[in-house]
Amino acid sequence: MNLTDKSITAFLDELSSDAPAPGGGSVAALSGALGAALVSMVCNLTLGKKGYEDVQDEIDDLLAQSEALRKELAGLLEEDVKAYTGYSLAAKMPRGTDEEKAERQVAMQAALKVATDVPLTIAEAADKVMDLCMPAAEKGNKWAVSDAGVAVLMAEAALRSAALNVLINLGTLKDEAFVADRRAKLDSLLEGKGVMRDEIYEYVASKL
Amino acid sequence: MNLTDKSITAFLDELSSDAPAPGGGSVAALSGALGAALVSMVCNLTLGKKGYEDVQDEIDDLLAQSEALRKELAGLLEEDVKAYTGYSLAAKMPRGTDEEKAERQVAMQAALKVATDVPLTIAEAADKVMDLCMPAAEKGNKWAVSDAGVAVLMAEAALRSAALNVLINLGTLKDEAFVADRRAKLDSLLEGKGVMRDEIYEYVASKL
Repeated sequence: MNLTDKSITAFLDELSSDAPAPGGGSVAALSGALGAALVSMVCNLTLGKKGYEDVQDEIDDLLAQSEALRKELAGLLEEDVKAYTGYSLAAKMPRGTDEEKAERQVAMQAALKVATDVPLTIAEAADKVMDLCMPAAEKGNKWAVSDAGVAVLMAEAALRSAALNVLINLGTLKDEAFVADRRAKLDSLLEGKGVMRDEIYEYVASKL
Repeated sequence: MNLTDKSITAFLDELSSDAPAPGGGSVAALSGALGAALVSMVCNLTLGKKGYEDVQDEIDDLLAQSEALRKELAGLLEEDVKAYTGYSLAAKMPRGTDEEKAERQVAMQAALKVATDVPLTIAEAADKVMDLCMPAAEKGNKWAVSDAGVAVLMAEAALRSAALNVLINLGTLKDEAFVADRRAKLDSLLEGKGVMRDEIYEYVASKL
């Protein structure tokens, strides 16, 4: 059963438990999906509404993007748990002989790369959700402007949460070129995002 | 059917739709509940674990608090939708006569007060979740430190999201004493929380 098929209560119960997955990586993906869903809500409250005739095409385009990102992020919630399972299985491989130890190390390093790239992809998607929030706040139905504000808060929390999950894996990876590449990608994704969040929040608060 | 009994996919679908509820207020409550659940996870990964004998009582206490807040916030997710429904019903009251108009105004103002106090209670609970994150990061299982970091990101996003939902209602409330009181409470809750979030995030990142 997919995690997204579970009830919110069941998901919160599993999250709270001593099972290591789902954990922060899945929450990052869910937070991004919540942000994308709120952008979709603002768009759906704007399409076909009087007074918003001039922005229909732009809102249509925003909605297509937010819905695609919502689906991607919901999928990444499952992927994050699968990546953890992959790492966990590698860690349980036999280590009786030197050959087995070496094979286990190779499998663990490969699994860690997957477990790094899933939250990095979550961070990339969350970054794209952030880009939709200011247009949604400025062009969308003014009665839903606070929802555009909540969207950016969730998307930025998703980006930062995903970042922590990338960093935890980079710390144990031995492929230096891979680590440098992913760290550079992450730094570029994070740059200026706290300021962007504050700017959109202040814009939204000024409209309330 | 309660919202928290619905699947994550169904909740995201409803959120994305042009129904005004659930909206940002429910997402604020859910974000706070996710933060509380992650604190619980860190505690459950610490209780009974070797090397953490000295902190068992403190972790037990943290877990009791995080679980109480998780349940409170999951309940507030439902309350937020009910508060919107209450306002919506008041807005639909007849306004044929001056008496009806006056009655409708009284009912709408009363419903707006409820719709203000629900997100204010969400903000208060999210603030309490934030207070648990640094102890969880410092004292909890070091393998789960990133989860304590994600917890503070979700709790702070919950607090700010709830704040936007308080502000949107304060703008249309006529009882000046009520508005001043709730605005003061909100300002006090928000003060220094961006800095607190950044401090816990940096502490967690330094451990990865």
